[in-house]
Amino acid sequence: MDKSRHRERVERCAGLMKASGLDALLLTKPANMFYLTGDGRLCAYAMITQNGRVALGVPMTDVEDVRALARFDYIVGFDNEVGMIHSIAHHFKEFGIQRGTVGLEFTFLTQAMMGMLTHPHAKPKEVSVKDCTAIFSELRLVKDAEEIEHIRKAGSVAVVGMRAAIEAVRPGIEETQVAADAEHAMRSAGAEGFSRTYVASGPRTNIAHGIPTRRKLAANDLVMIDLHPIVDGYSADICRTVCVGQPTPEYRAVYELFIKAQQATIAKVKAGVSMSELEQTLHTSIKEAGHGAHLFGPPIHGVGIEFEEAPLPAGHAFFHGEKAPKPLEANVVLAIGNCGLYTGPWGVRVEDTVLVGAEHGEVLTVCPRNLERVSEPENSTDVGMLADGG
Amino acid sequence: MDKSRHRERVERCAGLMKASGLDALLLTKPANMFYLTGDGRLCAYAMITQNGRVALGVPMTDVEDVRALARFDYIVGFDNEVGMIHSIAHHFKEFGIQRGTVGLEFTFLTQAMMGMLTHPHAKPKEVSVKDCTAIFSELRLVKDAEEIEHIRKAGSVAVVGMRAAIEAVRPGIEETQVAADAEHAMRSAGAEGFSRTYVASGPRTNIAHGIPTRRKLAANDLVMIDLHPIVDGYSADICRTVCVGQPTPEYRAVYELFIKAQQATIAKVKAGVSMSELEQTLHTSIKEAGHGAHLFGPPIHGVGIEFEEAPLPAGHAFFHGEKAPKPLEANVVLAIGNCGLYTGPWGVRVEDTVLVGAEHGEVLTVCPRNLERVSEPENSTDVGMLADGG
Repeated sequence: MDKSRHRERVERCAGLMKASGLDALLLTKPANMFYLTGDGRLCAYAMITQNGRVALGVPMTDVEDVRALARFDYIVGFDNEVGMIHSIAHHFKEFGIQRGTVGLEFTFLTQAMMGMLTHPHAKPKEVSVKDCTAIFSELRLVKDAEEIEHIRKAGSVAVVGMRAAIEAVRPGIEETQVAADAEHAMRSAGAEGFSRTYVASGPRTNIAHGIPTRRKLAANDLVMIDLHPIVDGYSADICRTVCVGQPTPEYRAVYELFIKAQQATIAKVKAGVSMSELEQTLHTSIKEAGHGAHLFGPPIHGVGIEFEEAPLPAGHAFFHGEKAPKPLEANVVLAIGNCGLYTGPWGVRVEDTVLVGAEHGEVLTVCPRNLERVSEPENSTDVGMLADGG
Repeated sequence: MDKSRHRERVERCAGLMKASGLDALLLTKPANMFYLTGDGRLCAYAMITQNGRVALGVPMTDVEDVRALARFDYIVGFDNEVGMIHSIAHHFKEFGIQRGTVGLEFTFLTQAMMGMLTHPHAKPKEVSVKDCTAIFSELRLVKDAEEIEHIRKAGSVAVVGMRAAIEAVRPGIEETQVAADAEHAMRSAGAEGFSRTYVASGPRTNIAHGIPTRRKLAANDLVMIDLHPIVDGYSADICRTVCVGQPTPEYRAVYELFIKAQQATIAKVKAGVSMSELEQTLHTSIKEAGHGAHLFGPPIHGVGIEFEEAPLPAGHAFFHGEKAPKPLEANVVLAIGNCGLYTGPWGVRVEDTVLVGAEHGEVLTVCPRNLERVSEPENSTDVGMLADGG
């Protein structure tokens, strides 16, 4: 593990903490801890100071594992919730933080967890609490070369998963089986895991979050497949909609409309463009075709350690504790097409992971966008080939 | 869908609301909404009144899908977060709730979501807020016949998954591939999904939450596999530890100690026994053998819609917003063995889903508990056979 990278990230973090008037951060979100220390896991916390010192608290069972994975200055193992609370108090004391402000992740912490972290036996009474979500949105926004390499790999694995899913699509098969084949293929291609897999068919293509059910695909159903593999801690996001059999002219017309809008948006991606300009590009032609009321969800969002992260569109950003995003910089990664077009009886959605470059965007999920399900050649799951195909 | 079941549940819920001084509930946790209405999904809410009226707010894309699945009195579709907030205000007004107390899920709601639900444009100013977690722990504690049938099925599917996982275990295979095979087998056997799959090998068997990595299994590694299939909305929980090759005498001794403690605990299960009595049974022989400091995590927890739910051990219950559990009633479902025994360099854990009966417990995850990986007969994934084997 290259510990200098994490040291440098903690230093940048400390700079943002100073600018935000935060004396310490008390983190429990695995994605943020992973970014700053190299390890993020459940039931653990990280305390970060303005001097760039890092204290970790983890289940006592996990101390040696974390020691090998994370960069930190102090580590403590705890037995249970009471031990966790006491160890937090200990770190506040050791760091000499008895007043001021501690940043907590308001977009992650439940009320119950908030109660533990701010328990009178954990947090000094004079230390007040503030949301630190925006710091991590800013820190994690622009990806470094190694992060981009991870996301690129995740993009290739997403394509392998999508090809396996599309291969599974046929009348009589259940949505869950399409998901199972995609997930198995992604893990076999190198994903250590995946976030939620969506497979929705027929009328279920109209719903926003198509968690797969045991519904059997029927002839002429549309099938919407949305995959989020995780490779080396980083995600990709791909969605395709395919038809079981021959698409109707109506399916085809709406699908073409969506694809044109998505492709026009991808064509506009480059450093200096704003999220709202991209959003407008995606929405305008769809609205002009009379489908404005059929758009739902953020059309574009960031991709990184999480498959949905900053930058978020301005409206959504507000409710996720984010500031409205600035014009895009190079090496931000976006998912474009997330909104989908939902006509009522059915919907279509096509989404790709796109790297923002100085002059143009680069699609990291290079995979056919055909409404008709075409047979793939035998070697279609060759990751290397696909990765070079961009 | 048998809507009378959900009507009856809402009535019981209304009774508990009266007893707790709650004028309404505003729910966003899918498991609780599923229990009360028949549908639980992301980005949706349910408002429940003391009169047993149910208003749902869902993404506008999902209205027809929810209409077919849920029992409710009112439903509204919203476009985005602003629409959601306004629809909540609308329901407060329609129900005539302008003061009093609304129950929110403190063990589920993030600070950010809390901010939305209590936004001045959503919640009337005079309505105060209180945690309602305990109501759902009580409501969902004792399972009805249909729920038990679902958990029984999930138990059989868990066994199919475990057999596939153990079948995959061999030197050189990655933890993620063991997970992939288990998950694929569970979905093929009828699971619509699964909660987190844990596969940890070698030194990683000592960590509390063994999210699979690409670590390759080595000869003589221990491998800990923990599966949580979901069938018809209900979960099961199974964990096995197996050895890649010949277990050392030390592995064998610690494993036997744990199994004896787990089996002794299962033997004590019946209505009227307390969680702490079971916990003590599990812990005592392990402590007497000098491994008390190697126990970690709640030894026993409930299983139902969630793979970990009430009843929780008293200590954990407190921090999860729960009351200490009463003596067990018949038709509560438990997972027994969740704590595991972590020696430092490695650990073992064996966990089963057990139905509390009037006179004894019934194991719903009937699957060999051998530290040695024995070859399974070809027909080992026959669910029906396994389901009858209990």
